[in-house]
Amino acid sequence: MHEECGVFGIHGGAAGDFRQQSISAAQAVYLGLYALQHRGQESCGIAVSNAGVLRAERRMGLVSESFDAPTLVALTGENAIGHVRYSTAGGSCIENCQPIVTRYAKGRLAVAHNGNLRNADELRDKLAATGALFQTTADSELIAQWIIRERMGSRSIEEAVMRAMSHFRGAYSLLALSPRKLVIARDPMGFRPLCIGKLDGRWVFSSETCGLDTVGAEFFRDVEPGEVILIDTNGELHSFRDNCPGKGARKAICIFEYIYFARPDSVIDGIPVHNSRMKAGALLAEQSPVKADLVIPVPDSGIEAAVGYARASGTPYGMGFVRNNYVGRTFIKPTQSERRKSIAVKLTPMTQSIAGKRLVMVDDSIVRGSTSANIIRALKNAGAREVHVRISSPPIIAPCYFGTDIATREELISNRLNAEEIRQEIGADSLDFLRIGSLPLLIDSNDQSSCANRQCCDACFSDDYPA
Amino acid sequence: MHEECGVFGIHGGAAGDFRQQSISAAQAVYLGLYALQHRGQESCGIAVSNAGVLRAERRMGLVSESFDAPTLVALTGENAIGHVRYSTAGGSCIENCQPIVTRYAKGRLAVAHNGNLRNADELRDKLAATGALFQTTADSELIAQWIIRERMGSRSIEEAVMRAMSHFRGAYSLLALSPRKLVIARDPMGFRPLCIGKLDGRWVFSSETCGLDTVGAEFFRDVEPGEVILIDTNGELHSFRDNCPGKGARKAICIFEYIYFARPDSVIDGIPVHNSRMKAGALLAEQSPVKADLVIPVPDSGIEAAVGYARASGTPYGMGFVRNNYVGRTFIKPTQSERRKSIAVKLTPMTQSIAGKRLVMVDDSIVRGSTSANIIRALKNAGAREVHVRISSPPIIAPCYFGTDIATREELISNRLNAEEIRQEIGADSLDFLRIGSLPLLIDSNDQSSCANRQCCDACFSDDYPA
Amino acid sequence: MHEECGVFGIHGGAAGDFRQQSISAAQAVYLGLYALQHRGQESCGIAVSNAGVLRAERRMGLVSESFDAPTLVALTGENAIGHVRYSTAGGSCIENCQPIVTRYAKGRLAVAHNGNLRNADELRDKLAATGALFQTTADSELIAQWIIRERMGSRSIEEAVMRAMSHFRGAYSLLALSPRKLVIARDPMGFRPLCIGKLDGRWVFSSETCGLDTVGAEFFRDVEPGEVILIDTNGELHSFRDNCPGKGARKAICIFEYIYFARPDSVIDGIPVHNSRMKAGALLAEQSPVKADLVIPVPDSGIEAAVGYARASGTPYGMGFVRNNYVGRTFIKPTQSERRKSIAVKLTPMTQSIAGKRLVMVDDSIVRGSTSANIIRALKNAGAREVHVRISSPPIIAPCYFGTDIATREELISNRLNAEEIRQEIGADSLDFLRIGSLPLLIDSNDQSSCANRQCCDACFSDDYPA
Amino acid sequence: MHEECGVFGIHGGAAGDFRQQSISAAQAVYLGLYALQHRGQESCGIAVSNAGVLRAERRMGLVSESFDAPTLVALTGENAIGHVRYSTAGGSCIENCQPIVTRYAKGRLAVAHNGNLRNADELRDKLAATGALFQTTADSELIAQWIIRERMGSRSIEEAVMRAMSHFRGAYSLLALSPRKLVIARDPMGFRPLCIGKLDGRWVFSSETCGLDTVGAEFFRDVEPGEVILIDTNGELHSFRDNCPGKGARKAICIFEYIYFARPDSVIDGIPVHNSRMKAGALLAEQSPVKADLVIPVPDSGIEAAVGYARASGTPYGMGFVRNNYVGRTFIKPTQSERRKSIAVKLTPMTQSIAGKRLVMVDDSIVRGSTSANIIRALKNAGAREVHVRISSPPIIAPCYFGTDIATREELISNRLNAEEIRQEIGADSLDFLRIGSLPLLIDSNDQSSCANRQCCDACFSDDYPA
Repeated sequence: MHEECGVFGIHGGAAGDFRQQSISAAQAVYLGLYALQHRGQESCGIAVSNAGVLRAERRMGLVSESFDAPTLVALTGENAIGHVRYSTAGGSCIENCQPIVTRYAKGRLAVAHNGNLRNADELRDKLAATGALFQTTADSELIAQWIIRERMGSRSIEEAVMRAMSHFRGAYSLLALSPRKLVIARDPMGFRPLCIGKLDGRWVFSSETCGLDTVGAEFFRDVEPGEVILIDTNGELHSFRDNCPGKGARKAICIFEYIYFARPDSVIDGIPVHNSRMKAGALLAEQSPVKADLVIPVPDSGIEAAVGYARASGTPYGMGFVRNNYVGRTFIKPTQSERRKSIAVKLTPMTQSIAGKRLVMVDDSIVRGSTSANIIRALKNAGAREVHVRISSPPIIAPCYFGTDIATREELISNRLNAEEIRQEIGADSLDFLRIGSLPLLIDSNDQSSCANRQCCDACFSDDYPA
Repeated sequence: MHEECGVFGIHGGAAGDFRQQSISAAQAVYLGLYALQHRGQESCGIAVSNAGVLRAERRMGLVSESFDAPTLVALTGENAIGHVRYSTAGGSCIENCQPIVTRYAKGRLAVAHNGNLRNADELRDKLAATGALFQTTADSELIAQWIIRERMGSRSIEEAVMRAMSHFRGAYSLLALSPRKLVIARDPMGFRPLCIGKLDGRWVFSSETCGLDTVGAEFFRDVEPGEVILIDTNGELHSFRDNCPGKGARKAICIFEYIYFARPDSVIDGIPVHNSRMKAGALLAEQSPVKADLVIPVPDSGIEAAVGYARASGTPYGMGFVRNNYVGRTFIKPTQSERRKSIAVKLTPMTQSIAGKRLVMVDDSIVRGSTSANIIRALKNAGAREVHVRISSPPIIAPCYFGTDIATREELISNRLNAEEIRQEIGADSLDFLRIGSLPLLIDSNDQSSCANRQCCDACFSDDYPA
Repeated sequence: MHEECGVFGIHGGAAGDFRQQSISAAQAVYLGLYALQHRGQESCGIAVSNAGVLRAERRMGLVSESFDAPTLVALTGENAIGHVRYSTAGGSCIENCQPIVTRYAKGRLAVAHNGNLRNADELRDKLAATGALFQTTADSELIAQWIIRERMGSRSIEEAVMRAMSHFRGAYSLLALSPRKLVIARDPMGFRPLCIGKLDGRWVFSSETCGLDTVGAEFFRDVEPGEVILIDTNGELHSFRDNCPGKGARKAICIFEYIYFARPDSVIDGIPVHNSRMKAGALLAEQSPVKADLVIPVPDSGIEAAVGYARASGTPYGMGFVRNNYVGRTFIKPTQSERRKSIAVKLTPMTQSIAGKRLVMVDDSIVRGSTSANIIRALKNAGAREVHVRISSPPIIAPCYFGTDIATREELISNRLNAEEIRQEIGADSLDFLRIGSLPLLIDSNDQSSCANRQCCDACFSDDYPA
Repeated sequence: MHEECGVFGIHGGAAGDFRQQSISAAQAVYLGLYALQHRGQESCGIAVSNAGVLRAERRMGLVSESFDAPTLVALTGENAIGHVRYSTAGGSCIENCQPIVTRYAKGRLAVAHNGNLRNADELRDKLAATGALFQTTADSELIAQWIIRERMGSRSIEEAVMRAMSHFRGAYSLLALSPRKLVIARDPMGFRPLCIGKLDGRWVFSSETCGLDTVGAEFFRDVEPGEVILIDTNGELHSFRDNCPGKGARKAICIFEYIYFARPDSVIDGIPVHNSRMKAGALLAEQSPVKADLVIPVPDSGIEAAVGYARASGTPYGMGFVRNNYVGRTFIKPTQSERRKSIAVKLTPMTQSIAGKRLVMVDDSIVRGSTSANIIRALKNAGAREVHVRISSPPIIAPCYFGTDIATREELISNRLNAEEIRQEIGADSLDFLRIGSLPLLIDSNDQSSCANRQCCDACFSDDYPA
């Protein structure tokens, strides 16, 4: 099951009574998850360890709407981990929420992860063959089971995690909470981001740096691909970088995090997302200039690339749409026939800004093409003279097996049509995508031969999956 | 009671079975209110008239989270009006929600309005002296009572509205739904916006044009200050412009709608809000230039002015903050002591964009000053070299008595401190406000002597209230 | 609108800080309403007066499920009144809930009442003719409006209540809470019960004595028909019995309260409900003996009469049904076709108790007949040899205009069929109703000529309505 | 974890389209659980198999308040099982709700059970030692895991169940739903009831016969202790009675089901519960006669025994209390100090029935003694002259390890005090318990030597646990 998610964890600190902390572990996780909410809005959960006991609360919905103050206050504990989960078709049920909490022979374990195991079916079969049973369809349950299985023959939970990792193939940024310890792991290719911060002497872990910023923690460093980290009962950080499984493997950091998924104020593996997007816009301006009156973004994810395009091209930047932020999950959509009457639900063109103008519209990607077609038609209806579409990523031609739920191969418009055909289908006056060779530049590499050399994953654009 | 709100109404059309309409009256109001949601998030309501019977559903919360599909479908009817309401301190209860529905000797009446009656206490006393009782503290109940009182000696509901208006002092944009008719009125000074659209031959009324755009209606014209409009049972529009109370009065369109309150894609009384804000930015750039590396907006309301400033000054525009859109009403805020640890809840500075830079930060207004101080400190912590604050409106020195809930006189920082003192208090490197004389330029008037001449209300900046 | 309801009120006591009371006014009303819940399950509400300010919370649903502890704690105040409301067809909305709270020229007033005004339409028209408007269809709003109208020319709220009462026709047991006083009134014919208790020096008012018992208050006396009571700011009780409107009128205490509506542990106007029901059973046994093996009640309202019948006849008493108390309001009923498969939802026959037996089944009344038919068929299916039905009240032939929502004249089976025809329709082996002449005996009167002489209302049985 | 619960299951029928059934499987389970609701009010759940796929919905709360019509309709499927669960201290969470649904190597399995495994810890340890992990603390998860483990080496799910049973010690009445089959099992000693019914050719299984009655199914027979039943894909019933584990073991049917837990209209293992209770009352009357005016039950569980006592003793029967059925789970209880003011929450004495009388109060058991003391005090306050307490079971001196959550040994008053001491503590004028030697008579055995001979479990009274 594909899923994009976010994780956040915090340790109670070196010593002293954690009840004296300026912010409780659960409250910190709450704020961290709230900062990571863009990574998943379907469900959320927080697990805490308190004097050797694990407890979790999991909910459907947004963090800010799912936890009330009494629930949060009741989640007393020294260490805590949390999870936000993306809405996926099927599987939307409370049982699939994370963190998953389990009991086993040697204790208890809570697991939250972001990613996707490619060999999940195989691992599940192996476990099942020995009698394992599964109550969910989530990778996190499988991961927990395998770790626990390895725990039987291991001296420690961290050793069990490392042993388990030698069986895992795919993407995972993982937080495991035992009654006394916190173990953190990132897959050897580092598909999904995971970073370390410090807050008043406590260790903090977050999918993105924006989680650290929100709780006021200082960035310490990224968890390295293949690294396993233990925070012991004294709050000491131990890194198992050198003898980790996958040591020395090719890295495969997801390039799409920079283009679309991550929050623009995050810094992933040393590269500010904001910079990548600005550069993508600038590269597009160079690659595909056009005479225009105004550069407009498709809000919110296209803003930085549009600013970058405008600045590099010298064309004025402006807002072309108003985005309605009040679309809740229960919004009653107009029917298809009502929509044909040009009912605008989420994006409304800003007529005064665009009427009579030649526009460059910058967006981050085209998946199925239908959204692009709708908003271009809306712009034209509102009086835009020309709409030149510039996409700050290459055509998406392949699905992701590493934790981003984009679409099936059949749904991807770039898999069926070439750029000119897409241009016609969406009704643009011109259309260009960022060249695939430019991707390494987004992450400060001068080697444009391929993303692989810079050790990032561009499989959705190249159909070339990291082994 | 001060309140900013939004209203939306639709008539069933000239003839034929309204059940054949592509969109039901209630569904249209639902979408219209959703587009006007920025005008009020506390409560919402929809009233429909169906074969001579009035029904209403009112809810606390957002439109998109308060109405489910069965409720909306059950609101069958030809004509409908709706309301969204601003969150005000005290008085947050279902009883105060609109539209208010009442029964009286000659029938029934539903009323929704946006605005504030200055002589509400006096009117309430007059009614009370004759035995009236009030179940709410809302102006809409008072307005309904007075209209109904006038209805006794009138030949029609529209006549009753006109008679009632001769007693009302202050701001009101009013929709009144009787079992068969729809009556619309705007106060003689036109404080609050109200416009007319057409959708497949049906008349539509909305606080702002963005409501028309969202349902796919064409703009017809604004309701004129002092105008009363009747949509009769045949769907004919009758205007009572000439013999209206207040005919020829000075107009007093709220300038703050242009600066802050309205949605940027709306056009109010002929002036696109987007243009006003762009111009405010350009005027500020002229009035108060500064050597800087980047112009950043305080999102979302400062974006247009920042773009205008950047364009006029030649300084690059960029995003300086990420705004978290997932703050629900039930968000558990960190305590004050936690916040001192620089926990950023709603706006997070985009370090990579601003570190080491000289910034111009454009915002729409400063009310109490505390928010400005917080975000300037956050920018500096994130490495901003200089922060030059430019406010796209003059200092607010007086409260609003016409329906915008800003603050009491004592809370207004500009009432206590001059610009230099404010600059010090908020920690800016420089600070400037738009000159009050520039306000008329925002609405395309060349007469800079005062807003009064252009017939708009700038009382919050000038302390000079329209009579 | 017909409605059976319950009211409960408490005064804060003679002196001293009411915050020191062992139980708060709102908590006492909460418990009192909970004891009166059998009088109405649709909605509930509590109003409190606190230092001259009135507040109310009203909810749909049961008291115990509608108020949470924080809400109850927040209802601080010295005096309080409350209301539970019967579920009526139509009009199920939060607006119609009581207590109603109003503002008027001289202050504020909260009103809760049980009963039904016969001249409500006429009164509403009179008020409407002077411009009054109504936001609900509830009598309580009308009563409040009329009291407030009279308040204009009165020296006190109690005087206004008395003046208003001279216009009211019908049934009302009324609690009115002003910012400092509590006024209680019962209509001159005393249709609905209302009693006075004392709790630690505080005055308590309740529809039934079971409300007093539940809060631990001592019974003081009943409010007399036509009496107005004032509890002043010093906690002194003043009775306006002598110069009350309706002084000396014929009384018309509802006989159906004794037969069915009231709780069996209540004492109404001096007569224990339990005794009335036991006597009804005994009278039936005398009037209509039958050779049988077992007397069974239709639970719960038929229990006392069945015990009375069994004891008087010497036939053993036993349970014939199990009643499922877990039918919530949201229970998903089987469809009609499913029910034909003899699905038993609320009452299940106790086969072992009844198989092969000749049964006397005692019930309180037959309204439409369909329920009786269902349960007799179920008994027969479960093996009952004979089912002899004995009804502890006469045939209901007329609707109630005084506050009990029984049925329309057309729906009443006794209005269409005679006893023998009903027997056939419901499938009983024999059927008898309590003789109408026996009704006075239920309330300890030896004058069997008619209920009217004992001054109670038996209009639903006699079609003879008190003037 | 001790828990009393109820289970209900139905098979889709021999052939043909189950969508044509008069009642869906899920709707039948819904009604069955509603009839079994007295066995557990904390949570409920329904699992269905539909064309090889298992789905479940589980909820906290009552069946009738937890499932809405759309949810029930969406639970399409041929076979279904359901569960209601008792409220236990701790462990109240959605994860512990049943039926539990699991995936494993050979498919899927849903399990619902009533009972308690004595060797749960040992079994859990054994599984854990091989790497099993547990996400709940419920026996049902353990049972499912063990069945699945056995499934690996078995040819069928029914064989796996039988193999698993050879490891289980304790009480279980078990429904297991595979994608195509339904397997039913009852532990070899038959602690908990489980019966079979037929509904239009479909097999139905219920903890008690009242579940069959409610859906209109005919009683077929009880599941025998140690029996495993398979309903195959053709709807054929196969019994594995002869080669079952535990064949020929001593039986240990729970005597407390007859005394208190089961619904009075149920028939358990051939003995009507109603008869047992009537007989208990009669035996008490013989054993412990007393001169009295009235026999009253403690409602609702003491009613049958009180009727039996009254009939045998010739003393009149009557109601002494009114029970308030409106206590929801969210009822705000008065504080302890408020309760001392004699606030009656659930049971109110019926003063008129008992004042001045010598009462025999019949109850089913005394656990901690505090409730008895409260209600006896209330009766005396209400004027009872004497209160003679007769308990229709022997003193409870030992906890239950077979699925009834009564109390710990320390909490049991009969473990600390003898009958005379208890009498003094609860303030009764006399007190007697049913003799332990009479228990066999409740289930129609003449051998009064011990319950063991009749093959029922009376461990809570005898401290003699079945091996």
